[in-house]
Amino acid sequence: MTHIPGIVITGASGRMGQMLIRTVTESDQARLVGAVERAGHDWIGRDVGEAMGGQPLGVTVTDDPLEAFAKAQAVIDFTAPEATVEFAGLAAQARCVHVIGTTGMSDAQIAALEPAARHSVIVRAGNMSLGVNLLVQLTKKVAAALDEDFDIEVIEAHHRHKVDAPSGTALMLGEAAAEGRGVQLADVADRGRDGITGARERGHIGFHAIRGGDIVGEHDVLFAAPGERIVLRHVATDRAIFARGALKAALWGQGQKPGQYDMVDVLGL
Amino acid sequence: MTHIPGIVITGASGRMGQMLIRTVTESDQARLVGAVERAGHDWIGRDVGEAMGGQPLGVTVTDDPLEAFAKAQAVIDFTAPEATVEFAGLAAQARCVHVIGTTGMSDAQIAALEPAARHSVIVRAGNMSLGVNLLVQLTKKVAAALDEDFDIEVIEAHHRHKVDAPSGTALMLGEAAAEGRGVQLADVADRGRDGITGARERGHIGFHAIRGGDIVGEHDVLFAAPGERIVLRHVATDRAIFARGALKAALWGQGQKPGQYDMVDVLGL
Amino acid sequence: MTHIPGIVITGASGRMGQMLIRTVTESDQARLVGAVERAGHDWIGRDVGEAMGGQPLGVTVTDDPLEAFAKAQAVIDFTAPEATVEFAGLAAQARCVHVIGTTGMSDAQIAALEPAARHSVIVRAGNMSLGVNLLVQLTKKVAAALDEDFDIEVIEAHHRHKVDAPSGTALMLGEAAAEGRGVQLADVADRGRDGITGARERGHIGFHAIRGGDIVGEHDVLFAAPGERIVLRHVATDRAIFARGALKAALWGQGQKPGQYDMVDVLGL
Amino acid sequence: MTHIPGIVITGASGRMGQMLIRTVTESDQARLVGAVERAGHDWIGRDVGEAMGGQPLGVTVTDDPLEAFAKAQAVIDFTAPEATVEFAGLAAQARCVHVIGTTGMSDAQIAALEPAARHSVIVRAGNMSLGVNLLVQLTKKVAAALDEDFDIEVIEAHHRHKVDAPSGTALMLGEAAAEGRGVQLADVADRGRDGITGARERGHIGFHAIRGGDIVGEHDVLFAAPGERIVLRHVATDRAIFARGALKAALWGQGQKPGQYDMVDVLGL
Repeated sequence: MTHIPGIVITGASGRMGQMLIRTVTESDQARLVGAVERAGHDWIGRDVGEAMGGQPLGVTVTDDPLEAFAKAQAVIDFTAPEATVEFAGLAAQARCVHVIGTTGMSDAQIAALEPAARHSVIVRAGNMSLGVNLLVQLTKKVAAALDEDFDIEVIEAHHRHKVDAPSGTALMLGEAAAEGRGVQLADVADRGRDGITGARERGHIGFHAIRGGDIVGEHDVLFAAPGERIVLRHVATDRAIFARGALKAALWGQGQKPGQYDMVDVLGL
Repeated sequence: MTHIPGIVITGASGRMGQMLIRTVTESDQARLVGAVERAGHDWIGRDVGEAMGGQPLGVTVTDDPLEAFAKAQAVIDFTAPEATVEFAGLAAQARCVHVIGTTGMSDAQIAALEPAARHSVIVRAGNMSLGVNLLVQLTKKVAAALDEDFDIEVIEAHHRHKVDAPSGTALMLGEAAAEGRGVQLADVADRGRDGITGARERGHIGFHAIRGGDIVGEHDVLFAAPGERIVLRHVATDRAIFARGALKAALWGQGQKPGQYDMVDVLGL
Repeated sequence: MTHIPGIVITGASGRMGQMLIRTVTESDQARLVGAVERAGHDWIGRDVGEAMGGQPLGVTVTDDPLEAFAKAQAVIDFTAPEATVEFAGLAAQARCVHVIGTTGMSDAQIAALEPAARHSVIVRAGNMSLGVNLLVQLTKKVAAALDEDFDIEVIEAHHRHKVDAPSGTALMLGEAAAEGRGVQLADVADRGRDGITGARERGHIGFHAIRGGDIVGEHDVLFAAPGERIVLRHVATDRAIFARGALKAALWGQGQKPGQYDMVDVLGL
Repeated sequence: MTHIPGIVITGASGRMGQMLIRTVTESDQARLVGAVERAGHDWIGRDVGEAMGGQPLGVTVTDDPLEAFAKAQAVIDFTAPEATVEFAGLAAQARCVHVIGTTGMSDAQIAALEPAARHSVIVRAGNMSLGVNLLVQLTKKVAAALDEDFDIEVIEAHHRHKVDAPSGTALMLGEAAAEGRGVQLADVADRGRDGITGARERGHIGFHAIRGGDIVGEHDVLFAAPGERIVLRHVATDRAIFARGALKAALWGQGQKPGQYDMVDVLGL
């Protein structure tokens, strides 16, 4: 039992937090040792399994992250940018691996992780799924192999509650395509195409954000030339893939040197 | 031979014009009797078949539409709004059926067709294909059958040279969806979704315009609810379907009463 | 509380059984009053909520269906053909609405439901989702509107555990297409196309059964002619839609005359 | 002019033959110097441009391939297996590059090309498009990166006249997937799935052959695991891409050492 890493989940009551808790408790490679929520949340002091409507799990939800981190080998954190920066400092103090799935971090917030990464392992990714990270690599490769006679468009679909467009993953795919072509995405991105736009500009990369129902996340990268097209597509149908990827990162991080890593490192792609 | 309607094609040198000429000459239900181009065009005075790089067709390209219309039973016209308004008047003088595939006409230009329609048959459609017109009807029906828990998005893809977004056909599909729901499209259209948009608004209809390669025309109408989706899709792979639809309209129009019609009338859907 | 129908779920421990139990307990329009499993199952005598790994629900799993049905207004049954025939008789005795989602029933087994349907309401459907039932109707309509120049192919995808191909829903869609064309599906079905098949036969309907991962259920009906295609697609991403459809049928059946019904009746399509 | 390679097209009257003739005559990097048809064909002795219904091209259709090859630097050949084996010998005599797009060749017929390949350059590919050859490589790479928890299915669609199923390109994709996994395709291919098949076998590769309308050629390679999927898709919409690929191969072959090559060599992928 002693060699099985103990994991803390932050944002325990959220949709992703609960998914992470289920993933950790169902795994025989990790143990759930902590569940963190913000001060004042009505889950504080309750058994997290019961709070989720199931059997007790023997872990009480706490609003003291440092105390929880001190007993753990890894923290998995899909919360919000400000909280994540604070958790990074505490995880470094506790010498925990910090797996960050939080999205929407500013450049300044990302820079603020650096001091922590000198003392602990941080794995941060916009998308923790094996498939998406593979797709990012394929996109870069295909964009490099094909010339500008292939027009690139990134089309994504997500559930109706998503507040930003296009998705972080779509932008990550666009960056990969731009990198494959040796251009800056900011110089060639066509977002929100509408109205009398004129003919498509050669070398541009278009983005489209479909919203509806409870779509978990779908991404197409289209390369369209006269007479033929290639499409690289990823479809996520279960958020558990993100939780499983995060757990994989937490386990991979054990024994790595301090520093910042991403899922390409974890997956060995 | 005398009962086989004679057809004039306007804009003869354009991509659609040439497609129409081929369609009419290959049909045994119609004869090509005229080909019109604007004054000064270098095809004027040449045999239209030779100008297209093939065998002579015995029809000389002219810049005098009225002279051409006078010998014909129908005019097929995929040109530009101003020219189309003028042709409508001349077709009415010549008592020709006027099939209009011209897109981008303003409300004023459409109103300007009305005097002509008192004397001749006008068939006008944003899209002349059987499949698209059927899709428009299905979209209206499905939008009426499903409640607002199904989010509607219209996604279209066209070639890189298209200058407007979304396509006229996409807007036609959006109108049909709005009509099925009993709302005005202008009140609910989400065009060019980009940035921090907030959650999707219930009842809205989204539009997306993909551009690339030489895609002839593809339209998806997505109805997405929690747990399930319906997609109605049309894919056009050959502009000949629009030409065949236009010829069908020209033949159907023979013997109809003067007035304005659309493809739903022609196809008997 | 007395006017809220009490529901029994058969096959309570199965994936669909548990989904039905969650759907009923989360609804404020129905109450869970019974849970049935076969004799000898290790859930017998346990609280069904606890057996599912959650909070107790106050309903003990029983192997005596008649006792359970006697306290209920409806039975929802996604089990196996033989069990379903037996349950039909018991539900008729108890004057319960019997909602049948069981697939793979033979003609003889379907006929064996008839005596029960003289005393109670039976709603039986190969697929309980709103979307699929709408798609079946659209398929019939489109097949009737288009002539045989449109080749019809039905493509379905399901999870790797599915043992039959094509799916019952795919066959239902094929039947609808055949009916729209006025032909018998058995005369025109192309199943398992492979090898030197020769050119496609005009008027035939092809079937394709993709299997992989945990795909819940996807169905495409393709109508392909020279130059254009229509696709009618349904995507199910959450089995809860079938459970919600079944519950809707159980509620709809209250107060109907005895007889056999399907989801088109329930949905009023 | 003398450095521009002269090209002979075999099977000149066929759909692919005519496409090749147009592609060569429109290119400024090659000249059409010969057009071959079988003895007795009614195009023999006619100018090939006129026989195609267009302007004369100054090349007379012949039934003597050796005479035609003797004046050329390359032969492009999309005919039938037996004819191709004979042409290979004649092309070797004439020291012409022989580009072979013929499909359906047996192992024995492929072996019969070997003597010719000792004297001349042969480029043979089941599919000459840039996109498909790239897709083959991606398929191999992805199959190697993902384990058997991803089920692989190859889905292709072609026009109604195609006589074999699945397509040669689908099999090429299946071979690439099998190679990526280190297995033999023959051991794991699931073709014509139909009936009570039982659950999908781990590690198998499924094939599906959709037929309809005038679909030029579409191929999907699906990798489906619980919770996520990757799809690699190629869509061909214009046979000209195969003709352009074949011409590219003919030009690339000038100055190469004798031997057998494929499109991966030509495209430098």
